Amino acid sequence: MRTAREFFTTRTVAETLAGFRPGRRTAAETVPLTEALHRVPAAAVTAPHALPGFARSTVDGYAVRAADTYGVSEGLPGYLEVTGAVPMGAEPTVAVGPGTAASMPTGGVLPAGADAVVMVEYTQEAMPGTVEVVRPVAPGDGVVRADEDAAAGAELVPAGRPLRAQDLGMLAAAGITAVTVHARPRVTVFSTGDEVVPPETAQLRPGQVRDASAVALAAMVTEAGGEPAAGGIVPDDADALERALRAALGGSDLIVISAGSSVGARDETAGVVRRLGEPGIWCHGLAIKPGKPTLLADCGGVPVIGLPGNPRSALVVFRLVGIPLVRLAGGCTRPPAEPVVRARLARDLASAAGRLDVIQVRVRDGVATPVFGPSALLSVLTAADGYVTVPDDATGLDAGTEVEVTLYR
Amino acid sequence: MRTAREFFTTRTVAETLAGFRPGRRTAAETVPLTEALHRVPAAAVTAPHALPGFARSTVDGYAVRAADTYGVSEGLPGYLEVTGAVPMGAEPTVAVGPGTAASMPTGGVLPAGADAVVMVEYTQEAMPGTVEVVRPVAPGDGVVRADEDAAAGAELVPAGRPLRAQDLGMLAAAGITAVTVHARPRVTVFSTGDEVVPPETAQLRPGQVRDASAVALAAMVTEAGGEPAAGGIVPDDADALERALRAALGGSDLIVISAGSSVGARDETAGVVRRLGEPGIWCHGLAIKPGKPTLLADCGGVPVIGLPGNPRSALVVFRLVGIPLVRLAGGCTRPPAEPVVRARLARDLASAAGRLDVIQVRVRDGVATPVFGPSALLSVLTAADGYVTVPDDATGLDAGTEVEVTLYR
Repeated sequence: MRTAREFFTTRTVAETLAGFRPGRRTAAETVPLTEALHRVPAAAVTAPHALPGFARSTVDGYAVRAADTYGVSEGLPGYLEVTGAVPMGAEPTVAVGPGTAASMPTGGVLPAGADAVVMVEYTQEAMPGTVEVVRPVAPGDGVVRADEDAAAGAELVPAGRPLRAQDLGMLAAAGITAVTVHARPRVTVFSTGDEVVPPETAQLRPGQVRDASAVALAAMVTEAGGEPAAGGIVPDDADALERALRAALGGSDLIVISAGSSVGARDETAGVVRRLGEPGIWCHGLAIKPGKPTLLADCGGVPVIGLPGNPRSALVVFRLVGIPLVRLAGGCTRPPAEPVVRARLARDLASAAGRLDVIQVRVRDGVATPVFGPSALLSVLTAADGYVTVPDDATGLDAGTEVEVTLYR
Repeated sequence: MRTAREFFTTRTVAETLAGFRPGRRTAAETVPLTEALHRVPAAAVTAPHALPGFARSTVDGYAVRAADTYGVSEGLPGYLEVTGAVPMGAEPTVAVGPGTAASMPTGGVLPAGADAVVMVEYTQEAMPGTVEVVRPVAPGDGVVRADEDAAAGAELVPAGRPLRAQDLGMLAAAGITAVTVHARPRVTVFSTGDEVVPPETAQLRPGQVRDASAVALAAMVTEAGGEPAAGGIVPDDADALERALRAALGGSDLIVISAGSSVGARDETAGVVRRLGEPGIWCHGLAIKPGKPTLLADCGGVPVIGLPGNPRSALVVFRLVGIPLVRLAGGCTRPPAEPVVRARLARDLASAAGRLDVIQVRVRDGVATPVFGPSALLSVLTAADGYVTVPDDATGLDAGTEVEVTLYR
């Protein structure tokens, strides 16, 4: 006869995020810069030489000695002899001495002797070979120094932060065309349950459901920078599950099981995971709704997440607890921010103290309207724009409260 | 002799976002569900049949006729004859009649005659074959209806919104394993300038700079759901640029040129783009800082974006103006939200009215500190966590003002 659920060690989500960590990080690998977006550098990358590497004009105009422009004005222009023109992309063949200037394109090399560039807008060709200057410049005006974008040896990108578009640009500027990054954590996703059949099953028999969790979990793994591997559907059979998990353990950085939904199936998963490796089960029961029947274990350094059988609960738990684990396994210590928006609650939310409630909401015109429904319904998640959490210590939130909605993307 | 810059038609960023649109959308293509994350459905996808497709138990317990439990309590339990057990994933062979019950796993098919499921927690096996029920249930309790997750023909995912993890799960549940989506917009990225050399150039000659923009722009195209194509580096030569652009026009949904940084190079780009196709140049000059020397044109339905030569300005403009164009070309009418955070400005920001100022900031402990530097410096962008915009009609923001920082990811 069945007994009520037993939750041996229940943990809060906060305890889990603080205390349950992958035992290891993925190895480093080198990828071309063109494929490095959002990859996680395994070490900081430094500048091999100063950038831009030469004193560079930031304006179109005339390279001058700043001292030659002191005191000039519209009413009392200065006159300088133009001794030549600096070409783009090449060493200037002209130098600037007292009383002389060289015409200068944006991005050109500041010629020897010059210490500033006067913008063309403040000059006029007085007569051929002479330029009239109507505004003074200070040394350094209109110029970036040879090491102003980066000094030799300066950190260009830090370790542990996924590479952003501009980071790739900076590395390209420094001539770095390959980056050493953490390998994408390999996450094997299993589904269990005698009732679960592959999504491509055209005709369901009564009682069968298609595997909705696996493809959604794989997508979240991808979003977190991991590489999902399809473990397939395992029937409610302890031996079959143990064989499948053992076979996956060696090649996985993380294992995810969306467990059978019945109590029996859940207990079976716990029993199998207990035999997989040390130190073993970290929690069996998470103080979250939906998602209480969650199992977390560390099997020889590989985190194993046993998710609830309901796809909706499984996806909620994996977003809050699984994604941070995937990121950590992949060496990401500075995860990107999630999009959030502030909105006012359209109605009261009840919540039990001692657990984190995750409420799906639609957001329109600054108002967050909860989408309710049994946790068996995936449509609650597809109808939602994001979610609100009610903290462990709160017993609810009143209508009109300003809440932070984390938006799906 | 050079003249000051001419901006023939200057537009604001808001005018551009509202008025400058790609002339066409990419064609539809069909992709497997496992590769459909963030892809944009070309049409709404509807449920081919009701989901879950059968009345399904949401709890472990006993299937009953609710009327048989009316009035029961801990003090006055009801007793029902257990006529059998419902298996997982199969049609029940047992029916429930007056005074009887069937044991029931979560996810099982509600047997004929039953209209509710009593949770196992509120039952006890009184003697073999009889269950004691201590809480009443109403019809529908513990059950999801056959069409409660989706009715046949109901919209599962809308057109135009990139597919999220849970959307893929919902489609899998409905047996939909391939989705018709917009092809990724093909965006050809050119760099121009005699001083620009490929990133893999180990040793720079004086005045040369490596192409930093192309790889960063390609990354942003990818982030926007597009497919970047490398147009390469074109020298400052109108004929060469025209040949390159014409060759790319047929196979591109959008063309991006990070223009030479000198006035001459910019004018050359404008001249070439003017000859490329009708209706032609939409604006030459954008009311944004940095990024004023931006050119936007529509060449036969293909948007052409001429970006400033400074990588930093180019990336700022492409983020604000280019990414929305890539999304639109790819049929995305409901783009995902960007991560934002509220913070207080660490210092005053000056700004000229009539233009949008884009200020790079670091954010720590709720304080946004501007990162300043010439627009030639890419390091300003790599040092930033995000950016703040000062609207066209503002002349600045005071220190302490609460601002919204859009965070890079």
